[in-house]
Amino acid sequence: MDKPKPQKIRIAAQDLHTLVASVFERSGMERSGADTVADVLVWANLRAVDSHGISRIPRYVEMFASGEAKPRAEMKVARPRPAVITLQADAAPGPVAMTRAMQEAINTAKTTGVAWASVSGTVHTGAIGYYTSLAAEAGMIGIGMLAGIPNMSYAGTKGAAVATSPLAIAVPSTKHGIVVLDMATANIALGKIAQYKLQGKPLPEGFALTGDGEPTTDPALAEIPTPLGGAKGGGMSLMFELLTSVLINNPIVTSFHTGTPEGERHRQNGVLIAVDVSAFGGADAFKSMVDATLETLKGLPRAAGWDEILFPGERGQRAFKERSAKGIPVPGATWQKLVKDAEKLGVTIPAVQTI
Amino acid sequence: MDKPKPQKIRIAAQDLHTLVASVFERSGMERSGADTVADVLVWANLRAVDSHGISRIPRYVEMFASGEAKPRAEMKVARPRPAVITLQADAAPGPVAMTRAMQEAINTAKTTGVAWASVSGTVHTGAIGYYTSLAAEAGMIGIGMLAGIPNMSYAGTKGAAVATSPLAIAVPSTKHGIVVLDMATANIALGKIAQYKLQGKPLPEGFALTGDGEPTTDPALAEIPTPLGGAKGGGMSLMFELLTSVLINNPIVTSFHTGTPEGERHRQNGVLIAVDVSAFGGADAFKSMVDATLETLKGLPRAAGWDEILFPGERGQRAFKERSAKGIPVPGATWQKLVKDAEKLGVTIPAVQTI
Repeated sequence: MDKPKPQKIRIAAQDLHTLVASVFERSGMERSGADTVADVLVWANLRAVDSHGISRIPRYVEMFASGEAKPRAEMKVARPRPAVITLQADAAPGPVAMTRAMQEAINTAKTTGVAWASVSGTVHTGAIGYYTSLAAEAGMIGIGMLAGIPNMSYAGTKGAAVATSPLAIAVPSTKHGIVVLDMATANIALGKIAQYKLQGKPLPEGFALTGDGEPTTDPALAEIPTPLGGAKGGGMSLMFELLTSVLINNPIVTSFHTGTPEGERHRQNGVLIAVDVSAFGGADAFKSMVDATLETLKGLPRAAGWDEILFPGERGQRAFKERSAKGIPVPGATWQKLVKDAEKLGVTIPAVQTI
Repeated sequence: MDKPKPQKIRIAAQDLHTLVASVFERSGMERSGADTVADVLVWANLRAVDSHGISRIPRYVEMFASGEAKPRAEMKVARPRPAVITLQADAAPGPVAMTRAMQEAINTAKTTGVAWASVSGTVHTGAIGYYTSLAAEAGMIGIGMLAGIPNMSYAGTKGAAVATSPLAIAVPSTKHGIVVLDMATANIALGKIAQYKLQGKPLPEGFALTGDGEPTTDPALAEIPTPLGGAKGGGMSLMFELLTSVLINNPIVTSFHTGTPEGERHRQNGVLIAVDVSAFGGADAFKSMVDATLETLKGLPRAAGWDEILFPGERGQRAFKERSAKGIPVPGATWQKLVKDAEKLGVTIPAVQTI
């Protein structure tokens, strides 16, 4: 007989935040850092980017245990040039390292106009759109690029060559909130492949390879996403590796392909850029013109079958509003794992609604 | 009876450069600016990006005549913040405005580490990879984004909504020359559609729309490319419009969709970023690690049917070497138009080899 399927639940965002922060605090982090991790993970769930939210917590707990991630990392921040910041993360959780780096970039850009913050050796950065949105909340433009362990093919390779490394860009507006593009350089995310598998649907042709590097449309066999637009997505990912990992002398691609355990160790490098809009003219005028551009786009004649034209991040904004009001739905299996980790650490489990 | 097809020719790069520079000088430009235009156009031809090379000269001549482009533009350069440059191009040809902007960015980044140069109101920037390569030649990383007149659809729009705006990134290496990614945000370039038409081949499904916004695989009917990866390419293009045009208060998307002649006037805005590699550690160590990364990539197991794995810009490098040695092949029709413009301006036509 099959085990009963664990019950899906809904939890208030604030309760989830407290629970998550407590788990990370009990895992050895200072409360402020634990709060930052909770900010980033719960933000992803609020925006319905569940693949980058609390479902990652068991992996964090594992990484703390194995030493891949450090709860009390000693981050080193330097400013070798007026507009450049480097942050050596010492395996600090991505949310802590990346939030700090973007804060430094924002503060620096107030003077210099633009600032580039390189982050070396962090783990699981989560939804990079969060960090670029910090810049937009400060009235700036935020740009971010990441590099990680190869999990995507490159034009002509049989297996994984580079990572599905994302690009994110966020800008503020007056009426439309923060416009945020957050895209992987793959044709399809690993999380999406899992969704196709759950639904028993074949993948689009050309989107993924088996572990042996053979093209497949079977989501159960698909292990390696292909790059967006072939040479373009692979080229972007490779350039992001050069702009992040190689620039700060912490290469991942060369190291990974040595095939050693050290080379395959999980780590990520990134760059976050802040651009102070007010350096170019009025920040309010900019934000209004962003609104006008979005309204022009949304008002254009629509193709057959389309009810609406959406700007980047608009769907996430709507989910954020709805989930902030009504709570965050969490699949039963994800919730059970979180509860198990929390109970082990002696964290109180808040009341939730089963759905 | 059909007219005989004009004869394809081959011309030495230096002869072509002199011819092109003379055409632009006789069109009213100073010699130094005319040389810069020739640098950029002939570079594209040398790298076999012929769609961005001398085939554009008749359009330049038209734009000088109509006033859309100015041979003696009065460009204004300002540095409102230590790491920010703005250049108002006054309808100067793209090669002049963009080269100047990147030179300013490179000079500034020597001190600040990173510099952002916004270019407002230029025309026909050509191959943006050229400008990012200037930074790489100076031992820096170059990044560029452009925005232009809408000619591409956006997820859900029936017709052209945004532009096929490119992203370019260039980095230096020791042994492999300059690695340069230069990609449009469309599934297919307009120039490629023309090639399919010449060859009588159908377009890949989903790559283009008719002028009425209907999907088509007939290259003769295809007028509007679709965005790379749907929401991703369209989102990139929209964000580039916000980061370039809207940031410097010279919006193109909103203006274009008013449908007025002024709104539809050809113009382009761009941003060029220089990042000084030496701010992060040794520039030589960086370039060697770029080599190592490329060699790792090129040495990976290959998928069936692939002879070789190429890094971004590698094919262009090879063409450059070959065409520098053997001359640049020019289709007969393109050559005839150039000769006609040159003769009208009293420019001497060099000897060429028919092929």
